[in-house]
Amino acid sequence: MDPITELLAEVLEEIRPIDSGAPAAYIPELATADPDLLAFAVVGPRGRVRSVGDDRAEFTIQSISKPFVLALALEEHGLDAVLGRVGAEPSGEPFNAISLEPITGRPANPMINAGAIATSALVPGDDVELRTARIADLLSAFAGRSLWVDEAVYSSESLTGERNRALAHLLKSHGVIDGPVDVAVETYFRQCSLLVSVRDLAIMAATLAFGGVNPVTGERVVGERVARDVLSIMSSCGMYDFSGEWLLRVGLPAKSGVSGGLMAVAPSQFGVAAFSPRLDQHGNSVRAVALVEAASERFGMHLLEPHESVASPAMTMHGDDAGRVVRLGGELGYAGAERIVAVLRELSEGLPAGEPLTVDARELGRTHPGALIALRGEFADLPDWVWLKE
Amino acid sequence: MDPITELLAEVLEEIRPIDSGAPAAYIPELATADPDLLAFAVVGPRGRVRSVGDDRAEFTIQSISKPFVLALALEEHGLDAVLGRVGAEPSGEPFNAISLEPITGRPANPMINAGAIATSALVPGDDVELRTARIADLLSAFAGRSLWVDEAVYSSESLTGERNRALAHLLKSHGVIDGPVDVAVETYFRQCSLLVSVRDLAIMAATLAFGGVNPVTGERVVGERVARDVLSIMSSCGMYDFSGEWLLRVGLPAKSGVSGGLMAVAPSQFGVAAFSPRLDQHGNSVRAVALVEAASERFGMHLLEPHESVASPAMTMHGDDAGRVVRLGGELGYAGAERIVAVLRELSEGLPAGEPLTVDARELGRTHPGALIALRGEFADLPDWVWLKE
Amino acid sequence: MDPITELLAEVLEEIRPIDSGAPAAYIPELATADPDLLAFAVVGPRGRVRSVGDDRAEFTIQSISKPFVLALALEEHGLDAVLGRVGAEPSGEPFNAISLEPITGRPANPMINAGAIATSALVPGDDVELRTARIADLLSAFAGRSLWVDEAVYSSESLTGERNRALAHLLKSHGVIDGPVDVAVETYFRQCSLLVSVRDLAIMAATLAFGGVNPVTGERVVGERVARDVLSIMSSCGMYDFSGEWLLRVGLPAKSGVSGGLMAVAPSQFGVAAFSPRLDQHGNSVRAVALVEAASERFGMHLLEPHESVASPAMTMHGDDAGRVVRLGGELGYAGAERIVAVLRELSEGLPAGEPLTVDARELGRTHPGALIALRGEFADLPDWVWLKE
Amino acid sequence: MDPITELLAEVLEEIRPIDSGAPAAYIPELATADPDLLAFAVVGPRGRVRSVGDDRAEFTIQSISKPFVLALALEEHGLDAVLGRVGAEPSGEPFNAISLEPITGRPANPMINAGAIATSALVPGDDVELRTARIADLLSAFAGRSLWVDEAVYSSESLTGERNRALAHLLKSHGVIDGPVDVAVETYFRQCSLLVSVRDLAIMAATLAFGGVNPVTGERVVGERVARDVLSIMSSCGMYDFSGEWLLRVGLPAKSGVSGGLMAVAPSQFGVAAFSPRLDQHGNSVRAVALVEAASERFGMHLLEPHESVASPAMTMHGDDAGRVVRLGGELGYAGAERIVAVLRELSEGLPAGEPLTVDARELGRTHPGALIALRGEFADLPDWVWLKE
Repeated sequence: MDPITELLAEVLEEIRPIDSGAPAAYIPELATADPDLLAFAVVGPRGRVRSVGDDRAEFTIQSISKPFVLALALEEHGLDAVLGRVGAEPSGEPFNAISLEPITGRPANPMINAGAIATSALVPGDDVELRTARIADLLSAFAGRSLWVDEAVYSSESLTGERNRALAHLLKSHGVIDGPVDVAVETYFRQCSLLVSVRDLAIMAATLAFGGVNPVTGERVVGERVARDVLSIMSSCGMYDFSGEWLLRVGLPAKSGVSGGLMAVAPSQFGVAAFSPRLDQHGNSVRAVALVEAASERFGMHLLEPHESVASPAMTMHGDDAGRVVRLGGELGYAGAERIVAVLRELSEGLPAGEPLTVDARELGRTHPGALIALRGEFADLPDWVWLKE
Repeated sequence: MDPITELLAEVLEEIRPIDSGAPAAYIPELATADPDLLAFAVVGPRGRVRSVGDDRAEFTIQSISKPFVLALALEEHGLDAVLGRVGAEPSGEPFNAISLEPITGRPANPMINAGAIATSALVPGDDVELRTARIADLLSAFAGRSLWVDEAVYSSESLTGERNRALAHLLKSHGVIDGPVDVAVETYFRQCSLLVSVRDLAIMAATLAFGGVNPVTGERVVGERVARDVLSIMSSCGMYDFSGEWLLRVGLPAKSGVSGGLMAVAPSQFGVAAFSPRLDQHGNSVRAVALVEAASERFGMHLLEPHESVASPAMTMHGDDAGRVVRLGGELGYAGAERIVAVLRELSEGLPAGEPLTVDARELGRTHPGALIALRGEFADLPDWVWLKE
Repeated sequence: MDPITELLAEVLEEIRPIDSGAPAAYIPELATADPDLLAFAVVGPRGRVRSVGDDRAEFTIQSISKPFVLALALEEHGLDAVLGRVGAEPSGEPFNAISLEPITGRPANPMINAGAIATSALVPGDDVELRTARIADLLSAFAGRSLWVDEAVYSSESLTGERNRALAHLLKSHGVIDGPVDVAVETYFRQCSLLVSVRDLAIMAATLAFGGVNPVTGERVVGERVARDVLSIMSSCGMYDFSGEWLLRVGLPAKSGVSGGLMAVAPSQFGVAAFSPRLDQHGNSVRAVALVEAASERFGMHLLEPHESVASPAMTMHGDDAGRVVRLGGELGYAGAERIVAVLRELSEGLPAGEPLTVDARELGRTHPGALIALRGEFADLPDWVWLKE
Repeated sequence: MDPITELLAEVLEEIRPIDSGAPAAYIPELATADPDLLAFAVVGPRGRVRSVGDDRAEFTIQSISKPFVLALALEEHGLDAVLGRVGAEPSGEPFNAISLEPITGRPANPMINAGAIATSALVPGDDVELRTARIADLLSAFAGRSLWVDEAVYSSESLTGERNRALAHLLKSHGVIDGPVDVAVETYFRQCSLLVSVRDLAIMAATLAFGGVNPVTGERVVGERVARDVLSIMSSCGMYDFSGEWLLRVGLPAKSGVSGGLMAVAPSQFGVAAFSPRLDQHGNSVRAVALVEAASERFGMHLLEPHESVASPAMTMHGDDAGRVVRLGGELGYAGAERIVAVLRELSEGLPAGEPLTVDARELGRTHPGALIALRGEFADLPDWVWLKE
């Protein structure tokens, strides 16, 4: 067992004894879940999946489908069209709240049921089968394997889903959804009934973490901007009326589902997922929340923490026949540009006069436009034997 | 003029023609503001303040005082005590909403007026003067110069501040604030009446960006954790009922005030501030919002964007008598550890057998515990002539 | 033309020039109504229908069906069972508000749509046809003629009734309605599409005014207690978010519908109805409201006005061989008993000693128990030659 | 003991064993009330006060002052001016709810605290003393004796009345109240602290029942229209979020207070009051509610019940030299006119042709204009030897 997997296992055993909460009761089929199931998985940039516990146990994805179907709607229609149907504001209300804007009837955001139904209704397709196929295809690409609907849970949801039907008819009455209400609602029930394991969820989260590219399959699943938009909305609205406190304490965009799953995303770092069916009063899995909090603490990183690397691009220095060369690598932001110039100033003061100093910026990765401007500008102030190679 | 300042000036002139909105009318003294004032400033890690427009014009800080007084309360009492008095959930409601939790009476968050009054009431001191002095001291440390109350605006606020008085009495009735209501409310009015320029606000924002250390004075003003907590709450609640969409579109923790100021924070990158008195229907300055959006786009960085540098710590390689040495620098996260190992594996394959390869991790800055564990673990798999120097 | 009809005609012409408002637009078929139609009718205890204007024009009953279907539910299940499904509190909200009690899901009252759907769902019958037949039968008995569904309006309502479907699914989700949602909703749409004239509505109102007995046909349609309960709920909730002001200004239980109808009830006095399709912002017919207000003023009676007759039962006096006899008639309440005794005391003082005075209470109608006790008690104090014949 | 008093005593003993609920705790001074106190009183049109139990015990009037101060505001300013400051709609919310109309800031109605403070602020007077004197004078006239403030309770209310202060500042911020907030709030606290007994409350209720004339002192305290308006608002809003169900079940305008008092009004019949400090979850006295419900049942009368006397004016018939004479007495409404004509028609058919029949309407009391028109009109149809003496 590798050390990361050992760490996961260690955390899992710490959390295992917690036995508060109860499986979701409002969908009868969910109430039959084994409450002792417990699993945990992490996926990093190279796509290695590390998982412990009941990591092969499958459960229905439920609300964790919402960010991915949002991604599908964004890919299909673009941000502005989607925002025409659903807002991006946290509502401070529970998942099944009737939070529609007074005049437009837009649901507050795509992470509450009303908004998720509106988003799902944007998936192209004439009938439930075609739409579900589109959704299943995309979610399968996120997971890196084919996902299937649990027909028993689907039937149970459909039989008892009166509140969601109510929301869909309300949306229809406001013109927020087009086409038949039944198609919209049944598609939504089927999307919620897709079966995933904790390993799938961690890969799906990692795909969002790495800008829409699945780190296991290497496939680009959605565009980088779509991934960013989905993560933004998960940050402000993903944990319902606990979203603000979650961002404060854990600092990672996340999404939970009533079957007991939870995934969280550390952008450019990792995707993480946990599973345990017993829920707290917010509808979040008690032990999955505890596992992800532990992961956030041990693997970093809280979105709002200062990150030195962001401010300090890689600088390597070496001498060659043409004099000293400083090579810049990685990402160059505003702060980095300021710091580089400070370093160069010091360096140039220490060099014998006239010895040329070259700054090689050709291997810089992502560079913010303002940062490069700043960098170029600063060179005007430096001795003229310090020059920038772009 | 340096290129960054040139860039700011260019953006300023792009935005200048926008003339929609109107100065705040509900405090008479604010309604007299010159609506054409326009200013913009940025401060990076080395504390150089770049500003354009009416950058010396002073205006009252108003709601932008809220995150800083929150910082003071957090420093004094700790997060749990503060959360006992005020929540951290966005309310989806306007700044002056009466968003109190049903039983506890806690305001939804410290960025709406009710929550800000509750936070301000946590500042120690027996009377308005002592409390205001404490607040002015801290905000002055954030700004790097002494800030003073505009007595005319204070009087105007106090004369017309009936809604805020109502909120304070409600909080008192729930036991959320201790001590006399008048002291709490007048302190709050004075805190809102502190005079700042756009340069001050940019420095204050930068102090939050750099973990609580003022980059101009070098003074540690608040702890790193306090800065992170303040930024978290600004992220979810800073722009009232526009917070979710702001996080989606701009992606920077921010705070606006009715006098027309706006500041935003790019963690570890920069603080930015803008000023223009005409407000939109959310109570945000029309042109200040446009300026900060432009800054976010040109200088980066959206919190939810993938950042390559986070995933790729600095690696420099050189040879010495003891063989090849790879030096790691910057910040090491989970993703970085995975990537380093991949690089080392490739390197070791290319080296003549037996030539020692040393990985020097002694200059790593911030290192997430899980990442180091991952790194160490991976070395078990590498040829034994590759070793880690910690 | 009799003088009452002349009075109605006079009032009608006073009101006719008012042309503000517009026909309901949300059901397309209603939007096609002739906006100039205008009618007015009154029915008293002897069942004579006096009407003026377009008094034969038929229109769909819409929300005015609600009190009658409530009467049907009360007859079938009793008050407590009905209150188990729907409350009796004004909600201060518009007709289509989603006013459900937090835990039970009971709609606030049976006069808003949600409550009316819940009430309609209490009508026995396995399918839409059977239930509609039950409803049509009862409403026909209230009107004294067979009422029929307008199929075009019904189709229009059914096609566009998404908000009502939403309410029904919400009710179903709370267990407030049993059986299929479709049956409940389509029954409700059919009940709203029954065709009536202003003459029908006035008779229906009069039937409630006279304790459930149709004054035209003489048929007892519902029990007296059911009529009283329906009138009570109309008093507090019948005019939506204008109910309080209506009770204050007009003082009559009333119910309006979006097709432009309005009926009001003066208990024991008359039923009145008016019709004009143009609606105000509350969804009430502008001219129908004006007509009924005029009727309330001219024919009386505001529920909260003092009524001398209530306090003074009929007393007739005559002499016969057995001495003086006072005959009591009408209704005896607490106040009447007090007053009778005062009169008797005066009388007995004026009579030659020993001349017997008989109080004949055998023809008293409705007598409140306390009043009779009071009366009997008082006789103990009177000279013994004054006695009560019961 | 007279039989009515016996009846009251009997009811009192039936109710006495109920011991659920608890005295109000939120004003410390009220929490010290003896929970076993129990009293009951009724006053009819002749001003005889019948009372049982602790009928001399004094308690603070609290919210029962609201309708009387409303009457004062209506007398001073007229209905329209009062409605400019406070609405007449039940809010479906608890007594201390913050139910202000969105734009105007008008409180929903004068029976909730916000509305009562707005109403109290309409009482003329420059300071608390003058305003309180005006209020105390009017309430004393309603009670027929001088009422005094309980200074201990007043102090307790003032010390703990933060929520009411909050409401007043909110009202001030909307311009709903003029003048200093402190004067408004302290006046309100003093008005609530006036001491009454259950006998006082019954007389005050009776004064409203008899159109504003105190039946004990014979003094006209307020105009008949003011009394009617107050009763209308009590009917729809007097029992907070229990008002609709109270109107349904009890059918009498009523008002309760947190000290355990309750009064109800049967227009033209009686005023009734009860007192017992233990409250239910709505803030109504458990046993006072039970006593008034019993009174409503035994003495009548539910506002929505059919009343035969209303429909049948007194008719007495006798012969004199000029032929048969029918004398009409009492109140003549629309229904009465119809009935009289029917009786006359029958009579005239039974009389020898030519024998004159005179209908003497000169002693009719209150006559609705429409009714007289109807009556006159009908005479056109009758044989010409039947004539009407007006």
